[in-house]
Amino acid sequence: MGKKCIGVDIGGTTVKLGLFETDGTLLHKWEVTTRKEDGGKYILPDVAASIREVLSQRGIGLEDVVGAGMGVPGPVMPDGQVELCVNLGWRNMNPQNELSALLDGIPVKSGNDANVAALGEMWQGGGKGFSDIVMVTLGTGVGGGVILNQKIVAGRHGLGGEIGHIHVRDEETEHCNCGGVGCVEQIASATGIAREARRKMAASDAPSAMRKYGDDITAKDVLDEAKAGDQMALEVVEIVGRYLGLLLAQLALTVDPEMFVIGGGVSRAGQFLIDVIEKHYQFFTPISKNKAKIGLAQLGNDAGIYGAARQVLD
Amino acid sequence: MGKKCIGVDIGGTTVKLGLFETDGTLLHKWEVTTRKEDGGKYILPDVAASIREVLSQRGIGLEDVVGAGMGVPGPVMPDGQVELCVNLGWRNMNPQNELSALLDGIPVKSGNDANVAALGEMWQGGGKGFSDIVMVTLGTGVGGGVILNQKIVAGRHGLGGEIGHIHVRDEETEHCNCGGVGCVEQIASATGIAREARRKMAASDAPSAMRKYGDDITAKDVLDEAKAGDQMALEVVEIVGRYLGLLLAQLALTVDPEMFVIGGGVSRAGQFLIDVIEKHYQFFTPISKNKAKIGLAQLGNDAGIYGAARQVLD
Repeated sequence: MGKKCIGVDIGGTTVKLGLFETDGTLLHKWEVTTRKEDGGKYILPDVAASIREVLSQRGIGLEDVVGAGMGVPGPVMPDGQVELCVNLGWRNMNPQNELSALLDGIPVKSGNDANVAALGEMWQGGGKGFSDIVMVTLGTGVGGGVILNQKIVAGRHGLGGEIGHIHVRDEETEHCNCGGVGCVEQIASATGIAREARRKMAASDAPSAMRKYGDDITAKDVLDEAKAGDQMALEVVEIVGRYLGLLLAQLALTVDPEMFVIGGGVSRAGQFLIDVIEKHYQFFTPISKNKAKIGLAQLGNDAGIYGAARQVLD
Repeated sequence: MGKKCIGVDIGGTTVKLGLFETDGTLLHKWEVTTRKEDGGKYILPDVAASIREVLSQRGIGLEDVVGAGMGVPGPVMPDGQVELCVNLGWRNMNPQNELSALLDGIPVKSGNDANVAALGEMWQGGGKGFSDIVMVTLGTGVGGGVILNQKIVAGRHGLGGEIGHIHVRDEETEHCNCGGVGCVEQIASATGIAREARRKMAASDAPSAMRKYGDDITAKDVLDEAKAGDQMALEVVEIVGRYLGLLLAQLALTVDPEMFVIGGGVSRAGQFLIDVIEKHYQFFTPISKNKAKIGLAQLGNDAGIYGAARQVLD
């Protein structure tokens, strides 16, 4: 029996777990509820108990496990320290040391969840076969992960891959959650896309298929109507694609990866969205034709467990 | 006698060379003229002959040399291939393999000159003691180098650190040399700063100490007059600082280095310039107080030979 590794993706509602062969084969995946009471102090014990149970059911001992990797929804310092993780209630703790202690000292390595998802996509997803990728996750917010030489660029202060909070739009006046103004996240997240649509509808009396959704319009509605040819929806997608294309250009001219992987719920719009991003990316990188390609993520919500597990395989 | 290493910084007019101890002590530096005739085919033989001469004078054999590193004014592929180096006349050649062959097969490693300068500043300059820095070189153009784990992030297509061609200014209409519009280089290079000053002077009739220079104004004139308190010159520096602060924010939210090192001729303005950049950098990174510091480069024109040599010490 070959060695195994474990991926733990800690979210605000559920913890996703995966048991893997070291070659990336997913053997089993499961979930436990995230108990956030009392500063989140039950989360890691619950995770450890669940891992022990699953291993036991399969006749696998902890000595057969290379290690467990973890994705955490917040900044993680180079030594694994988490100063504040609002979604979990964690404050000034080192979850990788704690989980390791709960699992007889097996190696545990943690990373920010968006960075970890990027590593997962590099390992077994849209970036498989590449060593240098940047993933952009378009969900409720905009997350990112920079992977160079098959390793996460976590940064010295936990800000590596925080690309959703790069300022790109000078004329913005509303504030982002981060305190900034004109962040990528304000435009290209699911909430941002819906906001752009509401703005467009409010700014003119032109007819649009988007109007039937009113203020409850979602990013999916916008993208669906754009695909169906609605002019105003296409204008919203153009805006989103412009700023994402600009973001990718900035990244290409900084770390120059082999490929960009676009993931998150918004990326379900598929090649239609990629094509718009691609057009603007080309516009902002006239310096060279030879540069990173853009593709779609492939692992969906499993990217986190894949990437978490991959962290312990270096 | 300890092992030595050699740094070769190839410029369009002269090649700078340095002989180093492996601890970074510069033993000797010298120059040879860059002969660009016939597709630059004499450059590397000249360099090799000059190295042999200097080593021979000092009684050092090639067997005492760990290797020679090279900085090249253009994109360098991961395998050392140079597709086109306009300033030297080089086309489709591998200078590191060629120089190695000319030096009895000692290891030779090449990199883009701006990237190499960044590595030099990390080794013995403004970034000494750090492993993760980004250098921004404000010269005739704007160059850059991203150093992570004490290694150059050269990129997969030679675009790593090409931060001068990141688009930051939407309202720009003139084109940059790269073919783009609104690049950092158009604003914050020496030529860019002079252009901003001419624009400011043309846009109003307000009095300014800058007017005495007319259209021949230089970046140094602008910075000197700003330091002396001239209002219009200060407005120009504000613009330059804003876009550089934005650039550093983008970089902090991508690779999150320990420090930024600002170099090149424009950086001779010193802490005065850093303070303006810092103000805008803070504005664009409200997400965290804990982030990379900004400092000045220290090696001047020698950064290239230091960094070139450092490349062979991994």
